[in-house]
Amino acid sequence: MKPDPAAVRAGAPLPPRSVIGILGSGQLGKMLAQAASRLGFVAHVYGDDWGPAFDVCAVHAIGRYTNLARLDEFARGVDVVTYEFENVPVEAAEHLTKQVPVRPGAQALAVAQDRIVEKEFISKLGVPVAPYLVLDGEARVADAVSGFAGWGKAGILKTARLGYDGKGQVPIAVGGDIAGAFESLKGVPCVLEQRVDFACEISVIAVRGLDGKLACYDCPRNEHGAGILRRSTVPSGVPASVEAEARKIAGRIADALDYVGVLGVELFYLGPGASVPLMVNEIAPRVHNSGHWTMDACAVDQFESHIRAIAGWPLGTTSRHSDAAMVNLIGHDVDRWKEIAAEPNACLHLYGKREARDGRKMGHVNHVAPRTGA
Amino acid sequence: MKPDPAAVRAGAPLPPRSVIGILGSGQLGKMLAQAASRLGFVAHVYGDDWGPAFDVCAVHAIGRYTNLARLDEFARGVDVVTYEFENVPVEAAEHLTKQVPVRPGAQALAVAQDRIVEKEFISKLGVPVAPYLVLDGEARVADAVSGFAGWGKAGILKTARLGYDGKGQVPIAVGGDIAGAFESLKGVPCVLEQRVDFACEISVIAVRGLDGKLACYDCPRNEHGAGILRRSTVPSGVPASVEAEARKIAGRIADALDYVGVLGVELFYLGPGASVPLMVNEIAPRVHNSGHWTMDACAVDQFESHIRAIAGWPLGTTSRHSDAAMVNLIGHDVDRWKEIAAEPNACLHLYGKREARDGRKMGHVNHVAPRTGA
Repeated sequence: MKPDPAAVRAGAPLPPRSVIGILGSGQLGKMLAQAASRLGFVAHVYGDDWGPAFDVCAVHAIGRYTNLARLDEFARGVDVVTYEFENVPVEAAEHLTKQVPVRPGAQALAVAQDRIVEKEFISKLGVPVAPYLVLDGEARVADAVSGFAGWGKAGILKTARLGYDGKGQVPIAVGGDIAGAFESLKGVPCVLEQRVDFACEISVIAVRGLDGKLACYDCPRNEHGAGILRRSTVPSGVPASVEAEARKIAGRIADALDYVGVLGVELFYLGPGASVPLMVNEIAPRVHNSGHWTMDACAVDQFESHIRAIAGWPLGTTSRHSDAAMVNLIGHDVDRWKEIAAEPNACLHLYGKREARDGRKMGHVNHVAPRTGA
Repeated sequence: MKPDPAAVRAGAPLPPRSVIGILGSGQLGKMLAQAASRLGFVAHVYGDDWGPAFDVCAVHAIGRYTNLARLDEFARGVDVVTYEFENVPVEAAEHLTKQVPVRPGAQALAVAQDRIVEKEFISKLGVPVAPYLVLDGEARVADAVSGFAGWGKAGILKTARLGYDGKGQVPIAVGGDIAGAFESLKGVPCVLEQRVDFACEISVIAVRGLDGKLACYDCPRNEHGAGILRRSTVPSGVPASVEAEARKIAGRIADALDYVGVLGVELFYLGPGASVPLMVNEIAPRVHNSGHWTMDACAVDQFESHIRAIAGWPLGTTSRHSDAAMVNLIGHDVDRWKEIAAEPNACLHLYGKREARDGRKMGHVNHVAPRTGA
């Protein structure tokens, strides 16, 4: 009953009971595994530590992402590989690709896990990003200092790699000490991004099928606190033409990566008067926190969309039947579970993590309401 | 972090990461396990054979339902026990109850797993059931033959125990051979039900909380073929007053059983002119196939409702945001997965069973549409 690997590579849809391999054992891996099971697939999860995805899959393995022997064993047991986070080593993805299709492909990882590569890639597509300066050595620090002075605007210094949820970031005020901040980040390659005066942040949750077809959910408007996403609201309230442009941008990026699966694209909307109304902040080659509202407001959510795409299935509908506001439960927010469970129209999702820590995403709640016009 | 068993027994809500024990490894167990995980619980499944629920839970065990040592081991690892089917031996439920709360309780099993007990129980509540005759020995066969002659109507002979999806049933035409049919069912206790000229069958998917609060979903209209549910449609098209009466009946039954969790009540609607418009066909002390539409048409589906109830949580909303028609995929219907996956607004649920066999429920599809008035 095992699907023929050559046919799968050539794009044949995976039949039920095919095995979906997922790299990463966190909450996104959990929700992917659950979506895969709903479609009759079997989920195998590979993580470098225990995570909540282990509780909902048929098979799990613990191993480093650099342990090729362990990865080989994993590859032998699955029909396709996907991942829940962008910091899977590109080498691991390339190694696995020799044995089994990896979707999205290794190139998406290579682009998304390095801010320098990412910004260059996006800019080359003619898609606007916020002005930035690269700091990847002593010489370029001096250039950055003078470039920064020329901006006359505040910035954020971010490590090129391995930053998430506000980690690896230092805000720099106008005239601030870039060299010191660079040193505090241990002199690893960084980008200095200009702080953009945006009206709001929106994102595109796009899904691209194996056949190149693209579908997008309605754009959520996203609010952050301390570098962590707090709330995503749909409809976003931004003009429909802006959302349409954002979706076009996401499509251009997905096409350029020959992407398969769900792609998250975060954008700044600079308001109706801006000469450049939209700038890409960053991309995530995976299901995205700002798409969690789809779980309770769409017939087919982002997790199922991702699984459909990587399994070579036709994409499902991305239209929404309800309005939604997704609120993350961070750290001890989750202690309010009893109260939230009693709220009408609150769809509660708890990740089942073993311990609540500051800044850790423990769950989310989708407040749903009948769909309004937009 | 293990919740205090005495507090749980007294009705304290189970905190996240409590362990929900589920007896039965089929598709209902699978969907219960997934709902439990969504709320941050950990699911342990006990089955007498491999089943699709094993693929989505943290721990599973294979054992007979009569193996008390194995059940003891299971009980030690869980904080509450529930079940996905009504043929769990009452002795097993009673044995487990000594160690851990079993919800719904053993009485619900005792009533639902014997048609004779069930019909007597319901009748005593003043709730109408179709006329029936009991056959549980030679002497009563003679009584049934004469009683049946008096009806002048066709009937269905059903084994009192262990029948499901049309199994253990023999239709009897007017003047038909009851004694022969009774013998073909091996002389086990049976009931002969009068065939009722109903306008349609509806069901109530009710959920009763640990605090005795009751909530009901909108009633689906159910269509069967060869004794197996084929389709459930919401709204049902029956008058609102009839649905209200059906819900009242379900509440009366749930109260009488001091029930906790989701209860399925199947009823015949005899039409607007009938002197007795509603008759209970049977009850199921579990989540119910005719409630599968709630997965894609309600903010909180029947599986989550069941888990909330048995965990001592407040019930969630049971209102629907969409209209829905649920169609079962039986046997090789499931081979159409590719085609169904491409239909717009078709929410596909495949159970991940290893082999399609005639009459086996392999999945279901919910066709959803914007909510209409009723």
